[in-house]
Amino acid sequence: MFARRFVAASSAMQRQFVRSISKSARLLQLDLKGIYPPICTPFTDDGKFDINYEKLAENMKVYQQSPLRGYLVQGSNGEYIYLTPSERVELVRRVRPLVTDGRLLLAGSGCESTAETVELSQQMAEAGADALVVVTPCYYKASMNDAAMVAHYTAVADASPVPVILYSVPANTGINLSVEAVSQLAAHPNIIGIKDSLGDISKLAQLVETTKDEQFQVLAGSAGFLLPALLVGCVGGICALANVVPEAVCRLESLWRSGSLTEAAKLQRKLVAPNAAVTRGLGVPGMKAAMDAHGLYGGPLRPPLLPLSDAQKVVLHKIFVDAEL
Amino acid sequence: MFARRFVAASSAMQRQFVRSISKSARLLQLDLKGIYPPICTPFTDDGKFDINYEKLAENMKVYQQSPLRGYLVQGSNGEYIYLTPSERVELVRRVRPLVTDGRLLLAGSGCESTAETVELSQQMAEAGADALVVVTPCYYKASMNDAAMVAHYTAVADASPVPVILYSVPANTGINLSVEAVSQLAAHPNIIGIKDSLGDISKLAQLVETTKDEQFQVLAGSAGFLLPALLVGCVGGICALANVVPEAVCRLESLWRSGSLTEAAKLQRKLVAPNAAVTRGLGVPGMKAAMDAHGLYGGPLRPPLLPLSDAQKVVLHKIFVDAEL
Amino acid sequence: MFARRFVAASSAMQRQFVRSISKSARLLQLDLKGIYPPICTPFTDDGKFDINYEKLAENMKVYQQSPLRGYLVQGSNGEYIYLTPSERVELVRRVRPLVTDGRLLLAGSGCESTAETVELSQQMAEAGADALVVVTPCYYKASMNDAAMVAHYTAVADASPVPVILYSVPANTGINLSVEAVSQLAAHPNIIGIKDSLGDISKLAQLVETTKDEQFQVLAGSAGFLLPALLVGCVGGICALANVVPEAVCRLESLWRSGSLTEAAKLQRKLVAPNAAVTRGLGVPGMKAAMDAHGLYGGPLRPPLLPLSDAQKVVLHKIFVDAEL
Amino acid sequence: MFARRFVAASSAMQRQFVRSISKSARLLQLDLKGIYPPICTPFTDDGKFDINYEKLAENMKVYQQSPLRGYLVQGSNGEYIYLTPSERVELVRRVRPLVTDGRLLLAGSGCESTAETVELSQQMAEAGADALVVVTPCYYKASMNDAAMVAHYTAVADASPVPVILYSVPANTGINLSVEAVSQLAAHPNIIGIKDSLGDISKLAQLVETTKDEQFQVLAGSAGFLLPALLVGCVGGICALANVVPEAVCRLESLWRSGSLTEAAKLQRKLVAPNAAVTRGLGVPGMKAAMDAHGLYGGPLRPPLLPLSDAQKVVLHKIFVDAEL
Repeated sequence: MFARRFVAASSAMQRQFVRSISKSARLLQLDLKGIYPPICTPFTDDGKFDINYEKLAENMKVYQQSPLRGYLVQGSNGEYIYLTPSERVELVRRVRPLVTDGRLLLAGSGCESTAETVELSQQMAEAGADALVVVTPCYYKASMNDAAMVAHYTAVADASPVPVILYSVPANTGINLSVEAVSQLAAHPNIIGIKDSLGDISKLAQLVETTKDEQFQVLAGSAGFLLPALLVGCVGGICALANVVPEAVCRLESLWRSGSLTEAAKLQRKLVAPNAAVTRGLGVPGMKAAMDAHGLYGGPLRPPLLPLSDAQKVVLHKIFVDAEL
Repeated sequence: MFARRFVAASSAMQRQFVRSISKSARLLQLDLKGIYPPICTPFTDDGKFDINYEKLAENMKVYQQSPLRGYLVQGSNGEYIYLTPSERVELVRRVRPLVTDGRLLLAGSGCESTAETVELSQQMAEAGADALVVVTPCYYKASMNDAAMVAHYTAVADASPVPVILYSVPANTGINLSVEAVSQLAAHPNIIGIKDSLGDISKLAQLVETTKDEQFQVLAGSAGFLLPALLVGCVGGICALANVVPEAVCRLESLWRSGSLTEAAKLQRKLVAPNAAVTRGLGVPGMKAAMDAHGLYGGPLRPPLLPLSDAQKVVLHKIFVDAEL
Repeated sequence: MFARRFVAASSAMQRQFVRSISKSARLLQLDLKGIYPPICTPFTDDGKFDINYEKLAENMKVYQQSPLRGYLVQGSNGEYIYLTPSERVELVRRVRPLVTDGRLLLAGSGCESTAETVELSQQMAEAGADALVVVTPCYYKASMNDAAMVAHYTAVADASPVPVILYSVPANTGINLSVEAVSQLAAHPNIIGIKDSLGDISKLAQLVETTKDEQFQVLAGSAGFLLPALLVGCVGGICALANVVPEAVCRLESLWRSGSLTEAAKLQRKLVAPNAAVTRGLGVPGMKAAMDAHGLYGGPLRPPLLPLSDAQKVVLHKIFVDAEL
Repeated sequence: MFARRFVAASSAMQRQFVRSISKSARLLQLDLKGIYPPICTPFTDDGKFDINYEKLAENMKVYQQSPLRGYLVQGSNGEYIYLTPSERVELVRRVRPLVTDGRLLLAGSGCESTAETVELSQQMAEAGADALVVVTPCYYKASMNDAAMVAHYTAVADASPVPVILYSVPANTGINLSVEAVSQLAAHPNIIGIKDSLGDISKLAQLVETTKDEQFQVLAGSAGFLLPALLVGCVGGICALANVVPEAVCRLESLWRSGSLTEAAKLQRKLVAPNAAVTRGLGVPGMKAAMDAHGLYGGPLRPPLLPLSDAQKVVLHKIFVDAEL
């Protein structure tokens, strides 16, 4: 990983270096095309909720058997918001050796403050992340306008030794990163793409269109609209559902790549209900319960997240059975 | 039109009759597949804002040269909300003879009250509408739950001599007709489809999936997501943009039908910006101004809608030029 | 009623006349201070849902025994949106003689179109309304900006023979009339006040503050915040709850006027829960059911509104019992 | 401070102890009545954005001359979201000695995770906080239902050596803590109140009403509705505007206490515009700029917050001048 050695360098030097590498050179190294599960962070079930690295390794072993392009550690589904900064870096370090065969390790380094995001980005890069997925800061919603977003991401991308991927997830943040801001940021040599979870397919098309001269890669943020996103020019998806049924999500992409549109559309329609269940419907608790039901380790959630009730588990089970994946 | 003669019959008789016709029989007669402009209602520019039937006929003559499947009179873009009940019926009657070659005439008969919607539906059917597009009532938002929606549409469909198409347009109504309600209504023999303008492609996929046993047809409510909507199983679109550039919207559909996916996706991406301009961006005033700029008659708007400012017209022009349609 | 004779005059003449009367002269005649129920429109329970004028008269007889300042016919609670234009005018005409003792008859004349609002305003004035309460048009939400609002209300106020009261009710319309627009409109000689139902007490204070030089009267749109509204300078309220328990709402105002703050605050707190039940909680169906339970005639609702379920009635009953009004 | 010595005790022991103290005993010690500025966190202007304790002490010296009841360190206006955990505790420790004369020091200990909130609460109590103001966790909005909120706050209150005050601020979090959840939590012996910043005066009245048997204290979260909040039974306010013009906000409360309602209402109306400017209008950047303009130290903001533009400063200045405070 060419960038690791720059962590200790001054931020001014870094910036100069980062900008000296042409974007196309970078993209040769980092083709994002494909499917990524935003992997869950397993916790111990002894009431202490420590990170359970053993179970994590077991999950990864299963995932490595699917044709996934890579993994996102600490997307929204990774409960990153409940991890301490040192846990966040350590998690990247521990997942790194589990990712082989040229797969990519993306890591979520977003924090509310620009300075903390920069620091975490550098530490995660040093810990082995191939690229960083940086969620929009969101607390002061009224102040998080385009100018603030552009300044924030520019500062992070300037300082990051590895490429940056923007991340917009309004369901959690209340912030919808605008096409205008993305279009401006896409010109930065160290910003190579965006994960957009809004589900507005017109916006995805517009993101592709307005960044077409920039070697900028757009990723769908959910399996609920993966196929249409691919159709309008997205290169892949980071999909919660791929934590539960990675084969099905990868099959959808491969049906698309092979031109089997009718089959692909049929599968896409089947995926919508289970996808909704483990995202906006039942959230991370739903996703972890579904993993438990599919022979993976979901396990407990860090409070304040509550586990599903038995009734909710029954509903969840039925949705997956009905989908006949 | 088989249904016209039933207008005068008692509502109980109608209901019995409507239900005695199998849904598949109806659908043989009413295949919605294709593109429809929700045509604008031209007004005179003498300050009286009367309906300008002459200009309307001129616009229709242009539209008839494009391979449109038909027309929606009094969709949101038809300023139906500013027409009196008698204008609404008369408009259908006057457009009817302008629609030839087996094209379909859809008419928007939605009102806030169930009774008025029933009455208008019957009158519009008598005036020549092939099917009715019925917007969700929306004023008492907190009370417009699934039960109210199911009761409303059932009553309208029971009484209507011609098939009913549901219409959900949250940007105007604040009401997002739920998948559950639609799924229930799709079983009604006289409800044959939905126009959904939300732009949530997952919802469109779910609508297709949950109604797949019902010969129910889903139409995209905008050209901004037409191609992805076709991909997930929608049969066509009712698209404001088709008022301005009908050829381009029809070409998008025909590229899809012929399997030219790359070309189709490229065109879809081009259409997003002009589509946004004449819908959520600049609204009906934007659409009418764009029509004026494209050799059609948009003309003035009924107040309280205001015409575009000169600055807005410049922006609009640039968006269409940039799109190179 | 000084204004009636101007209905037939040309709109230009009217405008000139209206503007020639100083605003203070008008306000001498129309002091809005006090409490108004936005009276419900009773319908027959024979399945025809005709307006039941007999029951209406009985309700009015009860109301006349409370120290109400007047009545609003066709506020949101009057199901005005389900009435035909001729019903709307006729209703005003039939209520007029029931309003005695110098009480005021306000009538809701708002329509989506400016022209229809003007026409209905003139007809309602002719039918006896002392002032008109004009709801914001709302269908094309994206276009209903300040400029559109100012133009709409100016046109209506110019043409109306009787004073106009603005009406902002975002829960139903999705439109929050801005302080800036109100401030501008308050300078119009024929616009004398606003009913604001949002429940943002800061906004009410700001409306009072920014219109303080204009003899402009601000009315709270709900009993849920009546007392605080009076405190910040509102002159009264148009309150759904006054349809059910007019004495209690009037007592709240009179406790305030007499300086019995502790008692007033105690009563205000008691009113919040029942008020919420008959407004955002259970809506017009809740209000009509509560009227039925309090010896008034609520009766059936025009579809698509559905009557309360038995379970909802039990909840509603408990809320009123608990409030010990 | 009686509670400090329990920090090291086991959480089970703590819980037992906390519950053994009657709530009324606690409240004797902690009467929240009065006004609190949610003090800003000053940063150095050398581009490092370190906490500037010198300037903080100077601000505090000014504040101590106003009849404030106390201070909130790390409310939303304290940019707490940009501070590291150790900075957050250290800040409490450094402010503690500056708070004299029996004034209260409240500290914001809210984090997304329950465990981190517990830990920070204990550390802040040890550092000298008299009570903790705990913002709602908010990232997984769809999962942050009443059950999650009740479990979260119960766990925090069980473990905290000092009383807990709930904090609901939907403008930043997107979460509106429900009356039902608050009502349930008010029964906890270590939860003594709530700061509610929504601005829904009906909700404030309902909070007072439903907790009236619980010795529970409701604080207005803004000066924009302070007087009406006091009227409906709130005991005081935590008001961003008190950072800028503490005298004016305290005068509003004292006018209320002395029964000078007309004067109070007049002042309240004057405060709305400047209050809006330093809250939802221009946010923390507006508040810090206003402090700079009023002889206090606002200073720079931690990115991604951006300083006001010159044009915005002019607007801000005008608003304060117009208010004639």
